[in-house]
Amino acid sequence: MADSVYDVVGIGNAIVDIIARCDDSFLSNHGMEKGFMQLISAGQAEEIYADMGPASEQSGGSVANSCAGIASLGGSCAFVGRVAQDQFGKVFAHDIRSIGVTYDTPPVDAGLPTARCLVLVSEDGERTMNTFLGASTELDREDVDLETIISAKVTYLEGYLFDRAAAKAAFHSAARLARSNGRKVALSLSDAFCVDRHRADFLELVRGGVDILFANEKEITALYQLNSFEEAASAVRAEAEIAVLTRSEAGSVIVSGSDTVEIPADRVEKVVDATGAGDLYAAGFLFGLTRGHSLETCGKLGSLAASEVISHLGARPEASLKELAAAQGLLG
Amino acid sequence: MADSVYDVVGIGNAIVDIIARCDDSFLSNHGMEKGFMQLISAGQAEEIYADMGPASEQSGGSVANSCAGIASLGGSCAFVGRVAQDQFGKVFAHDIRSIGVTYDTPPVDAGLPTARCLVLVSEDGERTMNTFLGASTELDREDVDLETIISAKVTYLEGYLFDRAAAKAAFHSAARLARSNGRKVALSLSDAFCVDRHRADFLELVRGGVDILFANEKEITALYQLNSFEEAASAVRAEAEIAVLTRSEAGSVIVSGSDTVEIPADRVEKVVDATGAGDLYAAGFLFGLTRGHSLETCGKLGSLAASEVISHLGARPEASLKELAAAQGLLG
Repeated sequence: MADSVYDVVGIGNAIVDIIARCDDSFLSNHGMEKGFMQLISAGQAEEIYADMGPASEQSGGSVANSCAGIASLGGSCAFVGRVAQDQFGKVFAHDIRSIGVTYDTPPVDAGLPTARCLVLVSEDGERTMNTFLGASTELDREDVDLETIISAKVTYLEGYLFDRAAAKAAFHSAARLARSNGRKVALSLSDAFCVDRHRADFLELVRGGVDILFANEKEITALYQLNSFEEAASAVRAEAEIAVLTRSEAGSVIVSGSDTVEIPADRVEKVVDATGAGDLYAAGFLFGLTRGHSLETCGKLGSLAASEVISHLGARPEASLKELAAAQGLLG
Repeated sequence: MADSVYDVVGIGNAIVDIIARCDDSFLSNHGMEKGFMQLISAGQAEEIYADMGPASEQSGGSVANSCAGIASLGGSCAFVGRVAQDQFGKVFAHDIRSIGVTYDTPPVDAGLPTARCLVLVSEDGERTMNTFLGASTELDREDVDLETIISAKVTYLEGYLFDRAAAKAAFHSAARLARSNGRKVALSLSDAFCVDRHRADFLELVRGGVDILFANEKEITALYQLNSFEEAASAVRAEAEIAVLTRSEAGSVIVSGSDTVEIPADRVEKVVDATGAGDLYAAGFLFGLTRGHSLETCGKLGSLAASEVISHLGARPEASLKELAAAQGLLG
C-alpha cells in the first residue's frame, strides 16, 4: 500500500446552515419531525425561511463537518462536494479551507444556488433540519479525483448522497476504488428517514462495501427495522467490520467482531445546539483510527469532539480540538 | 404633533457581519487598529477574508442593530438602508424583518454586492471591524420615505453615513424633516476614526441639528480633541440637549443640562464579543426615552441590552430584551 497523503477524504453535500431558535409549535405548525432531516424544494425553503426568526449562517454539511473536525484535531483531510458560484458558496469554501481541509471541487455555474439547510434549534438543544440541496446535487463521478481517493487512508461517505442518483454513482465508484487500493471505506447512515429511503442499498453496503459504519440509535434500529438498540447492535455486529453507534447523552457503543467498547458521553454544562454532534463524533473516531489508536481512544476522541460542538451554536468546532484532546491525554 | 406610528426610524448602513476569532498578531500583521473600524475596498476584503479563520455570518450594521434591539424590547421601529439583490442582502432583510422591524428599502441591482463587515474578535472579546460598504453606499435621499420620518418619535442616524456624500445628504434631509415636524433627532458618532474624518460636520450637528447624541469615550474625546473623558463630557454638556456617553465596563454617563446620571455597566460573566454593545445601549436608551421613562431608566435599559449582546457572538439580541427588561422591573 502506497504512503497516504490524507488521513481521510470525505465526500458529501456542501451546505451552508441557516440556524435559528424556535419553539416546538413552530415545528408542528410546519409539519416538521423534531430531530430529523427533511429534503425541501426551493419554494419550501423560501416559505420556511420567511417564518423563521433572525438567523446565523454557518458552514455545515454532515461529512464536511466531520472533515473540519479531523483538521481541527490535526489530521490531514480533503473534502469533495459541490457549491455554486454565489456568496454562500464562497462562505462554504472559505470556512472549510480556513480550518485546514483541502477543498478543490470547482463551483458549478448551472443556475442552482449553493445548498442550504434551515436548522431550527429547540429550547432543549435538539435540531430539526430542512435541506434544499441546490448545487450539491450537481456532484457526480467526475468530481471525485481518483488520486485523492487512492491517497487517503479512509474514504468517508455520507448516506445523504444516496438521495441523488449521480451522487450515489460517485459514492459507489469512490468506495470501489478505495477498497481495491487497500484503503478503508466509512459510511454514515445520516438520518433515520434517509435510512428508510435507501434501506436495501445501505444493507448491501454494510454487508460488503464499507469497513466502518456510523449510525445513531434511530438510524441503526431503522436499518434493521428492529425495536431495540440491543437487537440492532447484535444485527450489525454480525455484518460490519466496525460499527460505531451513538446514543446522545447515553454515550456510544463500538462493536467489532467480539469486541464491545462502551464510551460514556462527555458531560457538557448545557446542550446549546445538537447540530453536528454525530458528525464530530465521527471526526474524532476516524482521526483516532487513522492514527492507530485503540477503539476505546477513538471513541473517547469522538465523544470529546461531539461535546465541544454541542456546547455552542453551529456544527463546526470553535475551539482547537487538538488542544482539547491533548489536554485530556488522548493524543498519546 | 401628529400621532406617531414608530418609536424610532433608523437610517444606516445595511451590513452582514462575517465574524471570526483571531489572536492579536493577526490584527497587527494586517495593520488593523484593535477596537476600531476601518473602511476597506473589495480587494482588501478578499485578502483579509482569505486569511481569516472559519466564520459565522450574521446581520449587522450599527443603527440596524439598534433597530433590532428596539423591536426586541417591544418598540415599533423602521429601518432604512440599502442592500443588493444577493444572498447576503436576503439575509439582512430576513433578519431585520423577522425581529419585527419594518424594512422597505428596495434592494439595488447596480452590481455592488451587499455591504459586509469582517469582524475580528480577540480573546478578550474586543472586536475590530473592516467594512466594505458595497451596496450600502447607494443609499440616497430618495430612499428616505418622508412619511416614515414624520411618523417616528425619533429619527436615529449613523455617523458612518457621513463617509459617503449621497448618504450624508439623505442624513441631513431626514434630520431637517424630523425637526421641522417636531420630532427628535438622534446621532451616533459611530467610531473615533469616523469622528476624525468628519469632526466639523459632527460638531455642527451637535450644536444645532441633533437632540440626542450617542458616543463612547474614544469618540467624545476625539470629537473635542480633549485628553480626558471629564473634559469632553463638560464640553458636550454645554452643546447637546442629551449626550449619552458609554465607557464599556465603567458604565455610562448621561449629561443633559445640569443633570448627570451615572449608570453602572450590567455585569456579564464573560465578554464573548463586544460587537454591538454601543448599538444595543442606544436601543435600550431610545426605547426608554420614546416611552417616557426617566433618563436613569433609559440608561438602565441601555445597559441591560448591551449586556445581553456582549454575552454571545454577534451584534443582535438572541434573547427577548422585553422579557429581560420586564424581569428587572424596567418596563413598569
